[in-house]
Amino acid sequence: MEVAEVLHMNGGVGDLSYATNSRLQSKVISMTMPIAEEAIVNLYCSTFPTTLTIADLGCSSGPNALMPVSQLLEAVEKARRKLRKEPIEYQVLLNDLPGNDFNTIFKSLPSFLERLKMKIGADLGPCLVTGVPGSFYGRLFPSHSVHFIHSSYSLHWLSKVPEGLEENKRNIFMAETSPESVLRAYYDQFQKDFSLFLKCRAQELVGGGCMIFTLPGRKSQNPASRECSSTWELLAVALNDMVSTGKIEVEKLESFNIPKYKPTPTEIEIEVAKEGSFVVDGIRVWDVSSNQFSNNALDGFKSSSDNVAKGIRAIAEPILASHFGDQIMDELFIKYGEIIADRKAKEKPSLVNVTVSLTKPK
Amino acid sequence: MEVAEVLHMNGGVGDLSYATNSRLQSKVISMTMPIAEEAIVNLYCSTFPTTLTIADLGCSSGPNALMPVSQLLEAVEKARRKLRKEPIEYQVLLNDLPGNDFNTIFKSLPSFLERLKMKIGADLGPCLVTGVPGSFYGRLFPSHSVHFIHSSYSLHWLSKVPEGLEENKRNIFMAETSPESVLRAYYDQFQKDFSLFLKCRAQELVGGGCMIFTLPGRKSQNPASRECSSTWELLAVALNDMVSTGKIEVEKLESFNIPKYKPTPTEIEIEVAKEGSFVVDGIRVWDVSSNQFSNNALDGFKSSSDNVAKGIRAIAEPILASHFGDQIMDELFIKYGEIIADRKAKEKPSLVNVTVSLTKPK
Repeated sequence: MEVAEVLHMNGGVGDLSYATNSRLQSKVISMTMPIAEEAIVNLYCSTFPTTLTIADLGCSSGPNALMPVSQLLEAVEKARRKLRKEPIEYQVLLNDLPGNDFNTIFKSLPSFLERLKMKIGADLGPCLVTGVPGSFYGRLFPSHSVHFIHSSYSLHWLSKVPEGLEENKRNIFMAETSPESVLRAYYDQFQKDFSLFLKCRAQELVGGGCMIFTLPGRKSQNPASRECSSTWELLAVALNDMVSTGKIEVEKLESFNIPKYKPTPTEIEIEVAKEGSFVVDGIRVWDVSSNQFSNNALDGFKSSSDNVAKGIRAIAEPILASHFGDQIMDELFIKYGEIIADRKAKEKPSLVNVTVSLTKPK
Repeated sequence: MEVAEVLHMNGGVGDLSYATNSRLQSKVISMTMPIAEEAIVNLYCSTFPTTLTIADLGCSSGPNALMPVSQLLEAVEKARRKLRKEPIEYQVLLNDLPGNDFNTIFKSLPSFLERLKMKIGADLGPCLVTGVPGSFYGRLFPSHSVHFIHSSYSLHWLSKVPEGLEENKRNIFMAETSPESVLRAYYDQFQKDFSLFLKCRAQELVGGGCMIFTLPGRKSQNPASRECSSTWELLAVALNDMVSTGKIEVEKLESFNIPKYKPTPTEIEIEVAKEGSFVVDGIRVWDVSSNQFSNNALDGFKSSSDNVAKGIRAIAEPILASHFGDQIMDELFIKYGEIIADRKAKEKPSLVNVTVSLTKPK
C-alpha cells in the first residue's frame, strides 16, 4: 500500500466529508494559534521581507484548510499597520498528498480572498495562494524559499506502514497485545520519517525561518498504552467483529496496520538534535482532558458516538476502503459507533497534543 | 456572469472531458514547442540558476496539463548534461482558474514524476510541482520569482464579457451582423485585459525572464470575419434553432456572449509597446490550413463532426451551462454536431494561430 496514494481525508462538503467532520481539528488549530502568531510576528519584525512565504503542511480541505494561514496573515498585517510599514506580498503554500481534495479549496478561494480583503482593508498586498501536492517526507518547495511553516494534525502520519508487522495479527496499530518487535518497527519508521522531514524543511526554509507543528502525541513511555491507541483499538474491535461474522477475511485484517505514530516530546527532541538543522524554541504538551481548553476541545467527542464515528470515518475511510473495499464501510462505521457508545460510559477519552516550535538559525 | 467562476474546461477523464477531447490543443503545443525549448535553453545557459521556475498559464487538466513543462524541463536537462553542470531544482507552476480540475492533475503527478525520472535519469533534481488557481488577469506569483512563462490556447479568453453588447442580439460573438459598437466593445476589453496581463507578468518575471504564448488569432483587419468566428457562429445557429423550438427563451440568448477575442499580431504588438515592460523577440502567425502542419493540426476537425462538437463541448459546456442550464446541453450539442456535419462539405475550417515570444530586459 502506497500511503501517499491512499491517505487523504474524505473530500467534498457532504455529510461524511472531512470538511463537515473536522471540528476537533479546528479547535486544536485555534488552541495553538497564539504561539504561531507570536512566532510569525517576531519573524516579520526581525526581517521585514517584501514577500512573506507561509506554508501549511497537511492542509486537507474544508474550513480548516485556509484557517491557519488566514490567522497568521492577519497577525502580520496587524503588526505591519502598527509599525506603519508598506504592504507586502504573501505567498501561501497549501500542501497535502496528491489525493487531497484541492478543487474544493480552490473553488472557495475567490470568496475567501474577498472576505480577507474586507476584513483587513484595501491596502492588503497580493495574497498568492498555491496548492502543493506531495508527501512532506520529500521535497516540496524550492531551497531557501519559505519563511514560516505551520502544520496541525498531520505529522503523526508516517510515510508508509512500517515493515515487520506480521506479528501484530488482529491489531491494527500498537496495542497492549502487540509484541515488542511491532513497537520497535513503528518507532524505527517514525525516526526515519521524522528525520527526513526535518532535513527537507531545513533545505526549504530561509535562515531565521520558523516551523510550528502540532500532532497527537503521548506522555507514556509505552507507545502501546491506551493513552494513544484507544480510538484505533475500538476500530480494531469493530473489524474483528466483522471477521467473526465472515464479512472480512482474517488474512485481510491481519495484513492491515495504520501508518501513524504518536511520539513523546522527548522522541521529537531526540530527532531534532540528531538531524541538527534546527533550534527548539519550545515543546508544549497539551493534555486536553485536564487543561482549561478541555471542554471545548472535546466537544467533538462528547456530542455523540455517531459524531465520533463520523469524525474518524472522514479521516480513515479512504485508507480503510483501499484495503477492505468500499462496500463494507457503512456497516463498519455503524458497528464502530455502537462500540464507542458502549465504551464511552466506562472510559474517559484522552487526547494528548504536542506542539513544537523550531527555528532554523541564520 | 463572473468569468473566473464559470470558465473552465470539462473536468475528469470521461467521454465529454477536456482530457479526452483536447488533441487539437495538444498538436498546437507540439508545433510551437521548438521555439519555447530554444528560448528556455538560452535562458538557462545565460544565467545557470540553481532553481529554475517555469509557469504554464491556463494549463487545464488532462494530458496537455503537464506536457509543455515536461518538454521544457527535458530540453534544459539535455543542455545541462551536455555542459556537465550540477543538477538543479525545478519549480513548476501550473495555473488555471479556480474551477479547473486540479485534482485530476495532482493525482497523476506521482506517476508523471516517476516516468520523468526514468526518462531523464537518476541525477534529475527535485521537480516541485504547484497548482496556482487564479485569473492571469491579476497577480499569480511573487515578484521577480519566475524565469519562464508558457501559455497555449488560453490568452484568447477575456477576463469578462465586454460591456455594451446589448445590440449583438442573437449573435454570441462578433459576427457579420454585429454592429460596430460590439466590435469596439470587444476590442476595448481585449486591450484592457492584455495590458493588465503584461503588467502582472512583468512584475513576476525575473530580469531576463521569457514568456512565450500561443493563442488563436486572426489575419483579417475585421474581427467579425468568418476566419475567426465560424465555430462560434455555428454554435449560435444551434442556439437560435433552440429558441425557435421554444427550448431557450429569446432574452436568454440575447443576453449571452462569449468572452473571447482573437487578436491580430499587430494588435498584440501595439499593447506590448504601450505597456512597455517587454521586448518582442518574435511573433509568428501559423495559418494551419496552408502550412506543413495542416494535416496534423486539423485531425481533430477532420475526424468527424461528432468529434468537433465534443471538442467544443469540452471547452464551452461549463460557461454555456451556467447561463442556459445543464438540462439542454445534450440536445444543444447534438444539434451543433448536425450543423457542423452539414456545413463541413461547404466550408473549409480555418485556424490561425499567433505565437509570441517576449523577454523582460534585465
